[in-house]
Amino acid sequence: MDKPARTTGQRVADTRHRLEHDVDAWVATASPEGEPCMVPLSFLWDGATLLFCTAPNNPTTRNIAANGRARVAVGPTRDVVLIECAAQTVPAGGLSQDVLDAFAEKAGFRPGPRYVYLRMTPIWVQAWREANELAGRELPALTRPA
Amino acid sequence: MDKPARTTGQRVADTRHRLEHDVDAWVATASPEGEPCMVPLSFLWDGATLLFCTAPNNPTTRNIAANGRARVAVGPTRDVVLIECAAQTVPAGGLSQDVLDAFAEKAGFRPGPRYVYLRMTPIWVQAWREANELAGRELPALTRPA
Repeated sequence: MDKPARTTGQRVADTRHRLEHDVDAWVATASPEGEPCMVPLSFLWDGATLLFCTAPNNPTTRNIAANGRARVAVGPTRDVVLIECAAQTVPAGGLSQDVLDAFAEKAGFRPGPRYVYLRMTPIWVQAWREANELAGRELPALTRPA
Repeated sequence: MDKPARTTGQRVADTRHRLEHDVDAWVATASPEGEPCMVPLSFLWDGATLLFCTAPNNPTTRNIAANGRARVAVGPTRDVVLIECAAQTVPAGGLSQDVLDAFAEKAGFRPGPRYVYLRMTPIWVQAWREANELAGRELPALTRPA
């Protein structure tokens, strides 16, 4: 028997907790030719955007450079946080040392100088666990009020 | 400290076990316009292909009908099975009752008559847990010898 569906407020709280504490996400992108790519990557959440880092010549980076889109999943398949994102590449030189340090601490590795960062800004966010949570899975913006 | 990297044989055995016992996978597809899609879906593994089922009018189905490609991930981000697939839609009428019953038992629901099945045939398979398993992540074909 499924647990009762969570309220929107509880889903937002659970989603923020996952974004702050989970280390990895699935990142899906698409090539201009319509080829899907999906890989697991570590991320840093700053309260409004996700930051990833990977090699500059792999399909994820090339796809984002080409079309600026990604879909990100955090959590297991029965506790889904699904985030449609506007994505852009950011050179390491475009980030502050504090951000680089925070990324390295969260991800557990310090990217080499040739790596590229990927900044992803949520367009929409969904969160659900089981079928009884499919209704109401669209969440309001996760950005904390200033 | 990471555990020692698994042998290819152990990765194949672990991957077959996951395909036979895991219920859900992440399914990434791409639209002809280069828009990524990724959703969790339940699957049935028959020893050579994965069978999914979803609504006929959602992006996953439309993308596969358009370009016949999907990338599937099974397992968590630190015990990855990543499968590049040739994918096609299959009407329920094209499957035997035994297969329909096996799918319903594995997935935990019996799809309604308007649902469409998705048959995915691996093109390549990778399996890794931590960074020390990135080398050797490409697996040989999983199909059991006849």
